[in-house]
Amino acid sequence: MWTHVKSMTIHEGHGLENPFLGIHHVYANRLALEGLKSNRFGNGSILVFDQLTSKSADKASVEGERVLIGVMVKDSLRFPETNGWGYEAWAGDSRTERLVKGGGASCHGCHAQQRDRDYVFSQRRE
Amino acid sequence: MWTHVKSMTIHEGHGLENPFLGIHHVYANRLALEGLKSNRFGNGSILVFDQLTSKSADKASVEGERVLIGVMVKDSLRFPETNGWGYEAWAGDSRTERLVKGGGASCHGCHAQQRDRDYVFSQRRE
Repeated sequence: MWTHVKSMTIHEGHGLENPFLGIHHVYANRLALEGLKSNRFGNGSILVFDQLTSKSADKASVEGERVLIGVMVKDSLRFPETNGWGYEAWAGDSRTERLVKGGGASCHGCHAQQRDRDYVFSQRRE
Repeated sequence: MWTHVKSMTIHEGHGLENPFLGIHHVYANRLALEGLKSNRFGNGSILVFDQLTSKSADKASVEGERVLIGVMVKDSLRFPETNGWGYEAWAGDSRTERLVKGGGASCHGCHAQQRDRDYVFSQRRE
């Protein structure tokens, strides 16, 4: 169901290091894959942001423990205040400890700059 | 069909920088996912190694162009000399320019140290 879209590593000193320090992988469901092509995401599109620590040693960087799992879901009826996107994140491997407060407005504040791509940062590589 | 198993970045100065400099993602088909659990890979198991350049700037590392796609396939009848594994790789985005010479013996020379895991390096994280 989940297709790996891209990966990125945030190092110390980056503006987003809190909380995004480490390596993250972005996965898309089928509807979100369509959205990545057209820059229009239909209701039901889901993007998952899987963030792990990145440990560097001996000239290599490997993945460590999970930092958080973030999700953005398109549902234009449910999330009209944030252009149809709902945001949630869970700490580490927890499936209950939620990190997003205030309905995702803080997430969307940053995503808003991506209006031309329907508020999504990731672009799929071939 | 393909499940993302893990990712790793090889930096300059690493013993495997030629040809593995950059970030690689490992993907498994269903049979290979079973093998990753049991350390026994059935015939038909396929692992894909997707290697991209890694570009670092502004305290972040992003993926660049594709360096190569490597594949290992388990077929114990076809590849008895390399403990049942066949190896191939294609340069960049090419689907015709093959990189592995000599039937994968050079690949298997390194993989041989992983005998206890049926010659596979990757271990799946949860």
